[in-house]
Amino acid sequence: MVAVDLNADLGEGFGVWRLGDDDAMLGIVTSANIACGFHAGDPAGLLRVCRAAAERGVRIGAQVGYRDLAGFGRRFIDVSADDLLADVVYQIGALQAIAQVAGSAVRYVKPHGALYNTIVTHRDQAAAVAEAVRVVDAGLPVLGLAGSAFFDEAQARGLRTVPEAFADRAYRPDGQLVSRRHPGAVLHDPAAITERVLSMVTSGRVTAVDGSTIPISVESVCVHGDSPGAVQIASAVRDNLKASGVDVKAFC
Amino acid sequence: MVAVDLNADLGEGFGVWRLGDDDAMLGIVTSANIACGFHAGDPAGLLRVCRAAAERGVRIGAQVGYRDLAGFGRRFIDVSADDLLADVVYQIGALQAIAQVAGSAVRYVKPHGALYNTIVTHRDQAAAVAEAVRVVDAGLPVLGLAGSAFFDEAQARGLRTVPEAFADRAYRPDGQLVSRRHPGAVLHDPAAITERVLSMVTSGRVTAVDGSTIPISVESVCVHGDSPGAVQIASAVRDNLKASGVDVKAFC
Amino acid sequence: MVAVDLNADLGEGFGVWRLGDDDAMLGIVTSANIACGFHAGDPAGLLRVCRAAAERGVRIGAQVGYRDLAGFGRRFIDVSADDLLADVVYQIGALQAIAQVAGSAVRYVKPHGALYNTIVTHRDQAAAVAEAVRVVDAGLPVLGLAGSAFFDEAQARGLRTVPEAFADRAYRPDGQLVSRRHPGAVLHDPAAITERVLSMVTSGRVTAVDGSTIPISVESVCVHGDSPGAVQIASAVRDNLKASGVDVKAFC
Amino acid sequence: MVAVDLNADLGEGFGVWRLGDDDAMLGIVTSANIACGFHAGDPAGLLRVCRAAAERGVRIGAQVGYRDLAGFGRRFIDVSADDLLADVVYQIGALQAIAQVAGSAVRYVKPHGALYNTIVTHRDQAAAVAEAVRVVDAGLPVLGLAGSAFFDEAQARGLRTVPEAFADRAYRPDGQLVSRRHPGAVLHDPAAITERVLSMVTSGRVTAVDGSTIPISVESVCVHGDSPGAVQIASAVRDNLKASGVDVKAFC
Repeated sequence: MVAVDLNADLGEGFGVWRLGDDDAMLGIVTSANIACGFHAGDPAGLLRVCRAAAERGVRIGAQVGYRDLAGFGRRFIDVSADDLLADVVYQIGALQAIAQVAGSAVRYVKPHGALYNTIVTHRDQAAAVAEAVRVVDAGLPVLGLAGSAFFDEAQARGLRTVPEAFADRAYRPDGQLVSRRHPGAVLHDPAAITERVLSMVTSGRVTAVDGSTIPISVESVCVHGDSPGAVQIASAVRDNLKASGVDVKAFC
Repeated sequence: MVAVDLNADLGEGFGVWRLGDDDAMLGIVTSANIACGFHAGDPAGLLRVCRAAAERGVRIGAQVGYRDLAGFGRRFIDVSADDLLADVVYQIGALQAIAQVAGSAVRYVKPHGALYNTIVTHRDQAAAVAEAVRVVDAGLPVLGLAGSAFFDEAQARGLRTVPEAFADRAYRPDGQLVSRRHPGAVLHDPAAITERVLSMVTSGRVTAVDGSTIPISVESVCVHGDSPGAVQIASAVRDNLKASGVDVKAFC
Repeated sequence: MVAVDLNADLGEGFGVWRLGDDDAMLGIVTSANIACGFHAGDPAGLLRVCRAAAERGVRIGAQVGYRDLAGFGRRFIDVSADDLLADVVYQIGALQAIAQVAGSAVRYVKPHGALYNTIVTHRDQAAAVAEAVRVVDAGLPVLGLAGSAFFDEAQARGLRTVPEAFADRAYRPDGQLVSRRHPGAVLHDPAAITERVLSMVTSGRVTAVDGSTIPISVESVCVHGDSPGAVQIASAVRDNLKASGVDVKAFC
Repeated sequence: MVAVDLNADLGEGFGVWRLGDDDAMLGIVTSANIACGFHAGDPAGLLRVCRAAAERGVRIGAQVGYRDLAGFGRRFIDVSADDLLADVVYQIGALQAIAQVAGSAVRYVKPHGALYNTIVTHRDQAAAVAEAVRVVDAGLPVLGLAGSAFFDEAQARGLRTVPEAFADRAYRPDGQLVSRRHPGAVLHDPAAITERVLSMVTSGRVTAVDGSTIPISVESVCVHGDSPGAVQIASAVRDNLKASGVDVKAFC
């Protein structure tokens, strides 16, 4: 039986501010990428969402990012490798304690936003993040993009790499994501998205933006929950996978 | 043979800013209260000081504080118990990962600044801090003031409480510290300080500000390193203890 | 003809996070208390809301608060008078430049959250805020609670004080607000609220929580916009005032 | 008579942390680039240094930077033009109020650190900073590097551009600074530095790192005060200029 994980970003509020519908998403996904306080996430909010994830059996991942609340971690910062390594260690450790107190544990690491995008190609920062995971706990898998510098660096350190696909993003013929700056980068039609995800998961292939069919490695599918429409799409993706005989379960 | 621990606050810079002479103090103390990022301490700086502490065999404690870089954690904040608990869990966890990567571990917890002073009497915040330590690791001792609400709450949760004395502070007849707002709150004469510490440690008694002699529990002595004079006094305190046959060693 | 101002808190998001419906409220109120970056408000968001306020002819006030994004300025901080004065000057100046670039200007100052509540009685902090306003621009009125220490200090410095009433809060017989910790502190029935506001504005009297009728000074009425229901109530308050012949206009 | 301005970065502490010797530098320079809170500078500290500058007749400039306390504004951040414009407006406004309360005023703007370096070539960010200055006060000169994209954008908006030279930095044959990553980028010999500055100011020429002589526009010379040695060099630079008949005075 084919199986796949569904992951989404959670715990991305800060203090009085909330983002997305964490409760709804915890009923849909099997892995929760939970913010660690640098791009979002105050400790009390993180503890709440970790408790909710623990209650519902959703795996917790540390969603590490640049130290940039004002920019929500979406702006590249030219941070040195030494500083980035320490920043990532700090964030993972903080969420480990929060997750433990919630009765769970950090089970994987996924970089956020501009850091995620940067370490697809930025060798020094990719190595810093991979090394940070290794020195904290070499048994923690990392979630990311197949073929990225980050995955190279992680594999070179013996870390398990879990390739993910994006439910609603267009792909280039080389397997990378079409930049959000280009039209057509984000898909919006629920029916098209759900069928596309099913195809990626069951066939290991996806249609790129130029119409060609390309191979894609998918152990997890990333869905979003930052709007009512997004939650509905995520739910439909899950339902369609299950109705088609795919086992939706955590990768770890 | 009588033994006592010496502790000091370290790692209290932030980014480009430094405070005190961490290197000098690591040659003097046996326990380092290392900042956790909320009142001071950027991750890369914390990793450096944890590595230095590990190399020199100095025990690492998590110096948890209010979230207040601008105020250095020295201003009371009326934070709710739920928020404070999560803030403390987050800070301990962050330093645990940093300390582990440095080849060491967090061995105890000591509150910082206004939080330290507040939980001498503030029951809700005292309970929140004690509960945070318990849920992270009930085997972690806490360093603080004998007779404080914090110690009550810690003991009620089965935590080991380690009472400390201040080398350079005047005491009231009831065993509490004379407020810094009053003249004579802080002692400055090195010879008087070193003799006073030796007396506290060996006799369990100290002369209060009114001239009376009061009992004092001392498992650790807090010294400062934020000025050249302070480092010299700390060094003299240690030398005088050792010369008098007191074993200066970590309490844990 | 009786006239009154309507004010509400706006610009209280931060980066990606939003709070309340600023656009809807700008169609209702005559004065916008705009955050200044310490409890909420990133510069780009502040510039957007100041531009929108300028376009619609809504007066801009500087809503100054404690430096506490994580707590949204709702937690008392025991900041010194010197630091608070400088913090308030800094916030007013920052918003002055933003408002000017938006084609408007800061026309008054209103403290936010815990600072607002604190300086009802806390003499040192009240004096610091009043002095900050005076030294920046002694022509700026302050919005607040009649009978507060803040108003005393403001009047002693020659500042114009503009007393406000709260549309949805219960009053004690002494004219102060019933604490939110007590049941009945907040009113929820739209019809009751709109009638109460009309009565306060036209008669200068309000029914206190014990049933007694007390005098109340009202040059402005504070309404909220942080939920769809709140926006509807604010709109109904305005409509009821206008339908009853009250002129709803800015106090400055 | 030849005249030149001397400028230095001041007010770059934060809360309890200090950086450099502001008092000593205020006795040497004629223009103080004062931090605005984003890379350094808490309001109370800024007020203190502005008061000291006002007392000694030193001009105050707004030293605007990226929002990055942890990185001291030394790390490039890929902030959007809209966000950067608002960030710069906010910072200038904040310091304007602080400077006014101190009895002075902001007289010019100088970008800090990574922002300074970035807008030598980064057209979008250069335009955002120039536009921010223009919309706040088109009469404010900007201090920076001749030939930079920033100066292009500033001149296109009618701003006065004031070119500065660095007392202790090596120049490339094209007039740009040798990167700090290369050996020889920073000069250390006091005698060489003082003579070099005198030559730049009086002849409008400097010897580049390849031995060639290149023209250089100098209305202000930037000196540093972040170490005892740096203060001594700054003092020697000033003394040598005055002894050689150069009038050391503010450019505005």
